[in-house]
Amino acid sequence: MTASRGELKYEGKAKRVYATANPAEYIVEYKDDATAFNGVKKAQIGGKGAINNAITAHLFPQLEAAGVPTHFIELLSTTEQRVRAVTIIPVEVIVRNVAAGSFSKRLGVEEGTTLSRPVVEYCYKSDALGDPLINTDTAVALGWATPEQLKRIRELALNVQAFLVPYFAARGVRLIDFKLEFGTLADGTVVLADEISPDTCRFWDAQTNEKMDKDRFRRDLGGVEDAYAEMLRRVTAPGANG
Amino acid sequence: MTASRGELKYEGKAKRVYATANPAEYIVEYKDDATAFNGVKKAQIGGKGAINNAITAHLFPQLEAAGVPTHFIELLSTTEQRVRAVTIIPVEVIVRNVAAGSFSKRLGVEEGTTLSRPVVEYCYKSDALGDPLINTDTAVALGWATPEQLKRIRELALNVQAFLVPYFAARGVRLIDFKLEFGTLADGTVVLADEISPDTCRFWDAQTNEKMDKDRFRRDLGGVEDAYAEMLRRVTAPGANG
Repeated sequence: MTASRGELKYEGKAKRVYATANPAEYIVEYKDDATAFNGVKKAQIGGKGAINNAITAHLFPQLEAAGVPTHFIELLSTTEQRVRAVTIIPVEVIVRNVAAGSFSKRLGVEEGTTLSRPVVEYCYKSDALGDPLINTDTAVALGWATPEQLKRIRELALNVQAFLVPYFAARGVRLIDFKLEFGTLADGTVVLADEISPDTCRFWDAQTNEKMDKDRFRRDLGGVEDAYAEMLRRVTAPGANG
Repeated sequence: MTASRGELKYEGKAKRVYATANPAEYIVEYKDDATAFNGVKKAQIGGKGAINNAITAHLFPQLEAAGVPTHFIELLSTTEQRVRAVTIIPVEVIVRNVAAGSFSKRLGVEEGTTLSRPVVEYCYKSDALGDPLINTDTAVALGWATPEQLKRIRELALNVQAFLVPYFAARGVRLIDFKLEFGTLADGTVVLADEISPDTCRFWDAQTNEKMDKDRFRRDLGGVEDAYAEMLRRVTAPGANG
């Protein structure tokens, strides 16, 4: 079945979501636009849309096979994928293995400090408010998610963590932290949505700790396109363990 | 037994803690000093130390009787109380019934919005960092509290909530939110420490919604001393229900 774009349902900072003739499916288009600091810094990263589309399309089916339901159906083009229509739960989930970024600043923990156990954080998905940190009580009290959804989201996020950490380790990459978004299907099933890419993860080279993610853009480190391309190469390479 | 002050163990923004001849006991002295916005705004509020000492001394034994162990032993003077020596757990607990203050600003929820259920928030007690919001994963990963302590703290905080809400309602006061601190005794028992006062709670008059707490100072509303004195009067009055 081929799908073609209908109405633009949503345009985010890095993707556009289109309706299709089938109400149960959307088309996601990945853009080269990059933003940081809640949209204050903006640029294009050449090839980013295609790379993030390809990385996500490579990982999501493997996560699905590992027991994490996702919205992904199939690649449509270098920058498009067909996905199941979801209603996004406005609670972003961050899983942290090593202190970095806003976590380090906020808590005075030196970037690079390994956490004694993974930390799951929740943010309210709101550009206007800068995606503020929340907790599960707040999400429930303000009607953003149910306790059951939050329990499931945490469980799935930790399943993603359990899959990704060794996956990247086998490819010479330390998974420092990552952000996930979840959505609900029409029947209420919670599925992993959005993307997993250098835009939404911190990846450090396992040998050199060189940053291979959006921090190269945020912090003007240069070599942004090369880092994204190298991450695509590693993600799609067979792991060191086979 | 009379107690007398030994070494100054700790000086906070609103209290001093002294050792005593008994290593299991401290003396807490309540000060008139008021600070807001993490110490940026400073002043004296006449009579505040005595009022907060008296309010806390009135409430803590009732909480103890309601099943919440506390550090309080007895009043020593208008501004001093004898307490059990605790090691403060550096995780402040905020219980919110109505959106106000930083919660409203951070999440774009109008001040005065009643929450559909109480929200328990945790902050890392650090003046240098401005008491940043955390969650229980973070507290455990960074070694600030154990999962068992956090479970107990939440349980006790909700017990305090269950006692205080009707207690204040019977005295014409809406309990908007409050901050608690907990500590451990030498044997590891978690007890309620610090204070419960207009410095650490938001109190609104049940009829007029007039603020009767430290927000009068933070927001330059005037009548600060009168509001504190009125809260002492109401706290120590018999409730409308007897």
